[in-house]
Amino acid sequence: MPEPSHPRIGITLGDPAGIGPEVALKALADDEVRGLAHVAVFGPPAARWAELAGGRPAFLADSHQAHAWDGRLNGVDLVQVEADLDGLPRGGPSRASGEASVRYVLAAALAAKRGWIDAIVTGPISKEAVAMAGYAWPGHTELLAETFGAGDVAMMFAGGPFRVVLVTIHVALAEAIRSLTVGRIVTACRLGSDAVRRWFAIAVPRLGVCGLNPHAGEAGRFGHEEREIIGPAIEAATAAGLCAFGPLPPDTAFRQAMQGKFDLVVAMYHDQGLIPIKTVAFEESVNVTLGLPVVRTSVDHGTAYDIAGRGLADPTSMKAAMRLAAEMVRRGP
Amino acid sequence: MPEPSHPRIGITLGDPAGIGPEVALKALADDEVRGLAHVAVFGPPAARWAELAGGRPAFLADSHQAHAWDGRLNGVDLVQVEADLDGLPRGGPSRASGEASVRYVLAAALAAKRGWIDAIVTGPISKEAVAMAGYAWPGHTELLAETFGAGDVAMMFAGGPFRVVLVTIHVALAEAIRSLTVGRIVTACRLGSDAVRRWFAIAVPRLGVCGLNPHAGEAGRFGHEEREIIGPAIEAATAAGLCAFGPLPPDTAFRQAMQGKFDLVVAMYHDQGLIPIKTVAFEESVNVTLGLPVVRTSVDHGTAYDIAGRGLADPTSMKAAMRLAAEMVRRGP
Repeated sequence: MPEPSHPRIGITLGDPAGIGPEVALKALADDEVRGLAHVAVFGPPAARWAELAGGRPAFLADSHQAHAWDGRLNGVDLVQVEADLDGLPRGGPSRASGEASVRYVLAAALAAKRGWIDAIVTGPISKEAVAMAGYAWPGHTELLAETFGAGDVAMMFAGGPFRVVLVTIHVALAEAIRSLTVGRIVTACRLGSDAVRRWFAIAVPRLGVCGLNPHAGEAGRFGHEEREIIGPAIEAATAAGLCAFGPLPPDTAFRQAMQGKFDLVVAMYHDQGLIPIKTVAFEESVNVTLGLPVVRTSVDHGTAYDIAGRGLADPTSMKAAMRLAAEMVRRGP
Repeated sequence: MPEPSHPRIGITLGDPAGIGPEVALKALADDEVRGLAHVAVFGPPAARWAELAGGRPAFLADSHQAHAWDGRLNGVDLVQVEADLDGLPRGGPSRASGEASVRYVLAAALAAKRGWIDAIVTGPISKEAVAMAGYAWPGHTELLAETFGAGDVAMMFAGGPFRVVLVTIHVALAEAIRSLTVGRIVTACRLGSDAVRRWFAIAVPRLGVCGLNPHAGEAGRFGHEEREIIGPAIEAATAAGLCAFGPLPPDTAFRQAMQGKFDLVVAMYHDQGLIPIKTVAFEESVNVTLGLPVVRTSVDHGTAYDIAGRGLADPTSMKAAMRLAAEMVRRGP
């Protein structure tokens, strides 16, 4: 039995036609993972979950209708969220799978707002399915930011020897370069530093801020962004009381972080941060949203529609996301 | 004693004010490394080398004046190249150090052209010092390409679980994006595939070609280069008989290569290739120039003027460069 002082974690099952239901079931079948927290699973009724996941959630303590749930948790509880899954198409995105994906997340967000859970761990959803259901959110981050009325948010990845926060995310690389500003970089530094201080118990996080260009521009020979944008952003972050170093040559920054020189790497674009994370720490890598009033972690993989329901999905990332969420809540304010 | 059938490797000591003389001396003091090949060291007289390196080249079999050398090698020989090192400034680049750097390389290139050595392993030089000596070459690659009258050349890195060839190198990231063309990508694929076939004995190298944008553009949502340039380049490479896959999402391409799915990764820009190489295989990483008529490998570090001559330099990269050169020559045509 989990301790009463345990973190309370909400898990959203993600797209019901994807591997989310299966990885959640497999993760929670693990005694060690189940012992991390009181867990509320946001999804369909148990029999439907079992069918989607190819297994039975034998570990369930209680089952509730979302609209009647009072927030009490008793080990692993299922919070049933209404969504029409009759005739759900398998093997790909659909209006129905997108609609259900969103409803599970909205229900978990509401529970977090009411103070019933401390963290949300999200299963994978599909941008395409969410769009088919008529929603404009490109992903969880935007959906949660809007639902919580959050101001600035940022995406952090934690895994293996690294923590990395991204200044720009899902845009073309040329556009990412054009959109770099002092303000955006300082925001990522601030959100990242706050998160590492609050949730990883490091009083003064040391930030390694990457340059954009090869060799961090080599004194202006290969690009001007280090001098005109990144350098001034580091000065502004320092003036605001953060401990920020750089601009670092990107190709050695992550090696230095591995050696313990930085508590967080600030990456200018998606692949600058994701290439080292996924190369070194593929299975342990967890996506964390910064700037929300609740801890939110996520699996670091997609819906994998092609293998869903076949018993092939690997729950390692879901377990890692749950472990990190529990750790963050325990250390949190 | 090395076997008569051993590879013949020329080592250039690099900038005499840098750590090149020291790492070469330390590498050659290792019996195993010395046993890899007949070695011709291109540099100053032995006493001067000893002084620059903070040690004595006790392993020298013979010493020659470059202009009188007939190409015969007897273990580790020193080929003395004339260059004025009187009053050489230490601790930074100078006209004298740049001039000597270039002369050592030109002497080794001449020896290679005459067929006296099979491979050139270069110590680190400084772009700045070379420019102070009045030369326009930004680095070894351009110097050697011009000296050998080579057409297309490319930079490959080999280290740990990866081989990576770069489509663009030392330019600002925005400029690298603008300079991507079908022709350049196909050239990198061709040079890389040829090199892996000839020197790593893989009959049909499998190339993993990275996209440029996050998630390889996610079907055009984050950039058009995959559809307009990289995809067509892969088709052209395939039509030319190469085995090329992609465009791959950059953040997982290197993981796949580590798992043995590709024999070579084709990276679109410097840090896309160098971040994973330097993060995973920092000390073993070796720089290889493709497209030259001779094997050329290089240490993967700079002159490190600040620690030169203090006994602190680590010869790991020089040893790795020598091992790889010997391996390539033994497997070569």
